[in-house]
Amino acid sequence: MGGAIQIELTERQEMILRIVKDEGPITGEQIAEKLNLTRATLRPDLAILTMSGFLDARPRVGYFYSGKTGNQLLGEHIRKLSIKDWKSVPVVCQEETSVYDAICHMFLEDVGTLFVVKEGGILVGVVSRKDLLKSSMGNQNLQSIPVGVVMTRMPNIVTCDPEDSLLDAAAKLIRNQVDALPVVKEREGESGPEVVGRITKTTITKAFVELGEGTSV
Amino acid sequence: MGGAIQIELTERQEMILRIVKDEGPITGEQIAEKLNLTRATLRPDLAILTMSGFLDARPRVGYFYSGKTGNQLLGEHIRKLSIKDWKSVPVVCQEETSVYDAICHMFLEDVGTLFVVKEGGILVGVVSRKDLLKSSMGNQNLQSIPVGVVMTRMPNIVTCDPEDSLLDAAAKLIRNQVDALPVVKEREGESGPEVVGRITKTTITKAFVELGEGTSV
Repeated sequence: MGGAIQIELTERQEMILRIVKDEGPITGEQIAEKLNLTRATLRPDLAILTMSGFLDARPRVGYFYSGKTGNQLLGEHIRKLSIKDWKSVPVVCQEETSVYDAICHMFLEDVGTLFVVKEGGILVGVVSRKDLLKSSMGNQNLQSIPVGVVMTRMPNIVTCDPEDSLLDAAAKLIRNQVDALPVVKEREGESGPEVVGRITKTTITKAFVELGEGTSV
Repeated sequence: MGGAIQIELTERQEMILRIVKDEGPITGEQIAEKLNLTRATLRPDLAILTMSGFLDARPRVGYFYSGKTGNQLLGEHIRKLSIKDWKSVPVVCQEETSVYDAICHMFLEDVGTLFVVKEGGILVGVVSRKDLLKSSMGNQNLQSIPVGVVMTRMPNIVTCDPEDSLLDAAAKLIRNQVDALPVVKEREGESGPEVVGRITKTTITKAFVELGEGTSV
């Protein structure tokens, strides 16, 4: 039970919001007057608007418009989901792995992106289904091409931190037009970060389904 | 402004919920008594719990527990997003298109899935990056293989309806482990439905970002 809930604003609540937005700070009494209603009638509406974060109230001064829209407030729930709770296990290969073996590995693990690592799980590259498709077109001998030749290399890789929100990761996936992000941790004295997980568009789609079905968080 | 908003329940509201759950139907007066508070003090809490859908109220009878959890209520907002508002333009090819040309088309349009159609936009198949990668492995002459040989064929294609919710589409993407769904309309007298759009994991990720950033709906 409990946690975040949602409410559809009534027409009267929308009207109150508009009044406070235009004329705030304004007292409950003044709002009631404008609407030809009693202060008591408005009390639940004002309580809802204040508790939901639409309005700020200051004793002896009145109500202010908080500047947040309903959708901003709804978003606060989504923003609480974190990468560390949603990341899945990274699927990796080495720079020397052949394109042929990388494709096989991808099919076996049923993923769309492999992270290329060196000793200690240190990230050196990312190779996608798209990269592999491009390099396999018209190339007879995929066994002789190492992944290192076709991968995207550090520092051109978009990564994310386990402590970031899932929303940050989703925004990076869209902004950078990639299907997967390595979740990484900085390692002192290493040439790059360590890969500790992966977030993909599949992860985000799963989170969306769980939120929608009310089974998550 | 307006639309759905969200609220964190206070401890008192949680307590009210528990009382109504255990002892409902119960009047506001009776709840107030149990909490050693006045009816007036409780009024905003009861208003919030009723408006948010946690409680149902019936005049002269009292408050009932609606049986909905906070996450179910949040989910209601997500369930309102519809496929017709979110679908993007389908990218198509024909059964006779060569695997080579299909890969080029995919790269040019920057999509991960092509829908295979015949005259009138009638859906006959779906071909993914994965299908094309599989068929390009070790095949010298991609120009001689038609897409019809490597595609998934009707009726084995998972589709969705423009009137369905985006949540339905997201659940289908996860359940069937596919990256894209053709949005289709049934056509009388045709052998299959007409393709009118596409929903992908990218679509869902975009919706997630817009919900989280409060810029959507």
